[in-house]
Amino acid sequence: MSYRNIINDIYNYVNACSFNGKVASYIPELANVDPEKYGISFLCVNNEEYNFGDFDEKFSIQSISKVFSLSIAFSIVGEKIWERVGVEPSGNPFNSMVQLEYENGKPRNPFINAGALVIADILVSHFQSPKKEFLEFVRKIAGNNSIDYNKRIAHSEKETGYVNTALINLMKSYGNIKNDIEEVLDFYFCQCSLELTCKELALSFLPYADFSEPYNFNNFALSKSQLKRINALMLSCGFYDESGEFSFKVGLPGKSGVGGGIVAIHPQKYSVAVWSPKLNEKGNSLIGMKTLELLTTKTEASIF
Amino acid sequence: MSYRNIINDIYNYVNACSFNGKVASYIPELANVDPEKYGISFLCVNNEEYNFGDFDEKFSIQSISKVFSLSIAFSIVGEKIWERVGVEPSGNPFNSMVQLEYENGKPRNPFINAGALVIADILVSHFQSPKKEFLEFVRKIAGNNSIDYNKRIAHSEKETGYVNTALINLMKSYGNIKNDIEEVLDFYFCQCSLELTCKELALSFLPYADFSEPYNFNNFALSKSQLKRINALMLSCGFYDESGEFSFKVGLPGKSGVGGGIVAIHPQKYSVAVWSPKLNEKGNSLIGMKTLELLTTKTEASIF
Amino acid sequence: MSYRNIINDIYNYVNACSFNGKVASYIPELANVDPEKYGISFLCVNNEEYNFGDFDEKFSIQSISKVFSLSIAFSIVGEKIWERVGVEPSGNPFNSMVQLEYENGKPRNPFINAGALVIADILVSHFQSPKKEFLEFVRKIAGNNSIDYNKRIAHSEKETGYVNTALINLMKSYGNIKNDIEEVLDFYFCQCSLELTCKELALSFLPYADFSEPYNFNNFALSKSQLKRINALMLSCGFYDESGEFSFKVGLPGKSGVGGGIVAIHPQKYSVAVWSPKLNEKGNSLIGMKTLELLTTKTEASIF
Amino acid sequence: MSYRNIINDIYNYVNACSFNGKVASYIPELANVDPEKYGISFLCVNNEEYNFGDFDEKFSIQSISKVFSLSIAFSIVGEKIWERVGVEPSGNPFNSMVQLEYENGKPRNPFINAGALVIADILVSHFQSPKKEFLEFVRKIAGNNSIDYNKRIAHSEKETGYVNTALINLMKSYGNIKNDIEEVLDFYFCQCSLELTCKELALSFLPYADFSEPYNFNNFALSKSQLKRINALMLSCGFYDESGEFSFKVGLPGKSGVGGGIVAIHPQKYSVAVWSPKLNEKGNSLIGMKTLELLTTKTEASIF
Repeated sequence: MSYRNIINDIYNYVNACSFNGKVASYIPELANVDPEKYGISFLCVNNEEYNFGDFDEKFSIQSISKVFSLSIAFSIVGEKIWERVGVEPSGNPFNSMVQLEYENGKPRNPFINAGALVIADILVSHFQSPKKEFLEFVRKIAGNNSIDYNKRIAHSEKETGYVNTALINLMKSYGNIKNDIEEVLDFYFCQCSLELTCKELALSFLPYADFSEPYNFNNFALSKSQLKRINALMLSCGFYDESGEFSFKVGLPGKSGVGGGIVAIHPQKYSVAVWSPKLNEKGNSLIGMKTLELLTTKTEASIF
Repeated sequence: MSYRNIINDIYNYVNACSFNGKVASYIPELANVDPEKYGISFLCVNNEEYNFGDFDEKFSIQSISKVFSLSIAFSIVGEKIWERVGVEPSGNPFNSMVQLEYENGKPRNPFINAGALVIADILVSHFQSPKKEFLEFVRKIAGNNSIDYNKRIAHSEKETGYVNTALINLMKSYGNIKNDIEEVLDFYFCQCSLELTCKELALSFLPYADFSEPYNFNNFALSKSQLKRINALMLSCGFYDESGEFSFKVGLPGKSGVGGGIVAIHPQKYSVAVWSPKLNEKGNSLIGMKTLELLTTKTEASIF
Repeated sequence: MSYRNIINDIYNYVNACSFNGKVASYIPELANVDPEKYGISFLCVNNEEYNFGDFDEKFSIQSISKVFSLSIAFSIVGEKIWERVGVEPSGNPFNSMVQLEYENGKPRNPFINAGALVIADILVSHFQSPKKEFLEFVRKIAGNNSIDYNKRIAHSEKETGYVNTALINLMKSYGNIKNDIEEVLDFYFCQCSLELTCKELALSFLPYADFSEPYNFNNFALSKSQLKRINALMLSCGFYDESGEFSFKVGLPGKSGVGGGIVAIHPQKYSVAVWSPKLNEKGNSLIGMKTLELLTTKTEASIF
Repeated sequence: MSYRNIINDIYNYVNACSFNGKVASYIPELANVDPEKYGISFLCVNNEEYNFGDFDEKFSIQSISKVFSLSIAFSIVGEKIWERVGVEPSGNPFNSMVQLEYENGKPRNPFINAGALVIADILVSHFQSPKKEFLEFVRKIAGNNSIDYNKRIAHSEKETGYVNTALINLMKSYGNIKNDIEEVLDFYFCQCSLELTCKELALSFLPYADFSEPYNFNNFALSKSQLKRINALMLSCGFYDESGEFSFKVGLPGKSGVGGGIVAIHPQKYSVAVWSPKLNEKGNSLIGMKTLELLTTKTEASIF
């Protein structure tokens, strides 16, 4: 069966089911999103492309942005980046703080919030205008100059970002944050407020699946080996404390965000972005997880 | 043997020994204190009084101030205060954060930093001018209008207070901080920067030992039963994660601070303040601990 | 008001109230106890004595036995005992295992199960016939040769003692258990199965309150200073993770057991034993706690 | 460059380097192994085969056996197996016990010791003669009837297996172990004492890479989807708390043991077994890790 038919079947099947997840509600801007939104963009390395539902509507990509910031920081700092952030899964969330304490302020990986804050700190150190230059990178990799931050969302996150403020202060006490805390948080919340469509997201992740052309955007370049390592990190750490579950059921590197987006890639085959705002209790899109599980089941092809 | 002779002997004995502790060094103002300072003030409920060494020199009382802020807050809020802060020892320090996470932002007791921040929040809610009114209370209970904050110390603490900022943000995320974080921290660091002499400290703690007169300072009143409960808290939680050790070896309720001060009381008998800036690895005055251990050993009288 | 009248009032008051606690149910022998049992024995250092209700009925003292075993071990080993077990409260129970791991198999204090197992190991090393000699000590200090173990209870505990087996194995892996695990567990469960009446219990704890005569039973002697230290430990660690609460509300050193017994002492004044099998969620006798809280409130005398 | 040449180059390169790891020393039988042993067996799905060094010498496979026991248990119980053991990485080792406590006795995954003990319990429930039937399975999948347990190693492990005994008792207290503890431990230590050569190991893992023939050994069958899920688990949990590192640097599903063996597979391509007894501080073969990192670097082919 062709990809087109498989995805079409999944889209119809999922639309006919009912799901009970809840839209992220900790800030009003996220809570107001229509929970019934559902879009899929599927993009092959050979440029085959299939789009379904609300694939062309902007949504808040939130933590998915951490892959972009890691890619830039990895390009800048190289292997020394792992002196400040690890590559191991974080176990369960309840001990996030104690792990930082126990491991002297070095976060387990770049996709938990603590790790993403260290990465943001690296970008703030490197960029003259962090927000502007980060945005330019994303516009380049996603091939769309209209992509922008949502300032209301960034502002709301900052207003209520007590846990992130706790984390960054704890790391600062260990010397693992170099810049002013306010400046790093301001950049971080801005980064997370990026809005992309499924289509833009699938396109911007294709370079992580397609090694036929060099990865180089606005002079931030990564080798094939570095891209594979980012993929390995997505697989083992991309879904909070449900990363094992995603790896187990879907079997693809990917990254989710509390805005309901999930993007995943099959190296040398395709990238796929799904958006559905209803979240499971772990904070991952319920329908997004199901869609991708069905995709690798029906195509009988995961990386394993 | 009389108290006078016992304390005189201890003072001379300790002066003849050498101790290896280190002065608190996390801010320059504390690091610059002469490590050889050593003062004792001993004050009986019958007004007997004995002073030795540097008993009349101001020093930074730091965490000892938490007893004053708790007393005021307990007077204001009454028993409901225990809905926001517990009365149990905190175990060891490494899990301070995880305990806050596990117990939903309610600190174990009012003498660990997290608990003292909740108490500071209560005072900020209650007072019109928190710094001014808190100072008036301390001047009253210590019987000296010249007592004041050390603004350089308060400022330094604030500049480097990342762990406290982490704690207060974590508690705010659970709703256990009602006021603006900056305002509470500003008050808290100010409170800790109070400077008293041993003599003033012994005098200001006498009301916790002497129940013959009502406890009422600037209209903040506590019943005998409430005073006993504060004493119980000092015994079980007054010395960070060395509280058991102090209770075990000294056997008196007391409170220490990283400035090198320790104050302790024997209910219905005396209050005693010791100052020596060299700290052991747990952050308690090495010589202060030794002095009080010798005191209860030689008098053969602890509360047990 | 006299002790007699105060205790009489408390006994009548408590009898008129209704309490919701639950009898320990993890082994049938404890679950079968009549939940309505309620006895008090109060014994002054001057031999005044008051008994109420079911004061003359045997019950399983369980963890209260840890005070006896600690006393013997302290007498044998002296201060070196603290190299194998600490004197600090344990914080909350959920991290009992991680604390043992983090602190390399040294339990926080002798009254948590891990610590009591180390003490049991010390007795097993010292005694030729641990069960026999321990029993002789208790018969001596309680002044009653009919005191005995309850073998059915000991057997039941052993059958289901998985958590204790986990703890002792973990400590053995750190080298803090010297004897065969089975032998230590066998002795430990036997020790906990001791059955005493309130009257016997009050009598056996009087030596911890009355320093006028030397503490020496079957040649196990403790100095006044050592007794005070055991009292300090009872205060800070005697009630599991409710020790702060007991210290705060009652203000006396004491020890509880899941059989519903509580014993407490007021140094140089009295010892008191209460028995009521209904437990609160922390495993302490609900009515026992209330009885003692009323006692120190009405007498207006705690150690603080 | 051909696989043969690549592996030959790696073998020679590694032999010319010096490595500082230490042989596992907690039992004499493992400590006595020659630290300089080094063997590689590489086996393609198309039956290409390359062997180097000590590839034909038996060694203790230890934790690698957990893949066999999981495969059998998954075949028996099906998806319900995940009710008793999870699929998430375990974070770092220091909190292994607290995680079991926090998560009510359900281990995070089947490859940490706690999880492998639950799997062993499942086999003990299912088999008439667990040791005999498990051995028959391994002989079948490895194609060699001479494979056997090393009874001295099994016995030594049992003698000193305090941590495993602690873990299984803790899980029994939560009801997640159904059989007698001694029986399960006896089987578990036996299972881990299996001795295979690199060649046998590579052959026995080929079925996890080669989906062209049905997986069915002694009537224990797994679907292609189930095999992929076991591969996903190996990737995210196969190397203790260095799983992220292995996934990041090597990029293949695999499993290591403290005997110094590592086996890894590239789905639809090959299986590879390496043996070198020197371990890094995380307990994984230092040279084994290096060999496989070089393999995926030089072949420029991992699963990512």
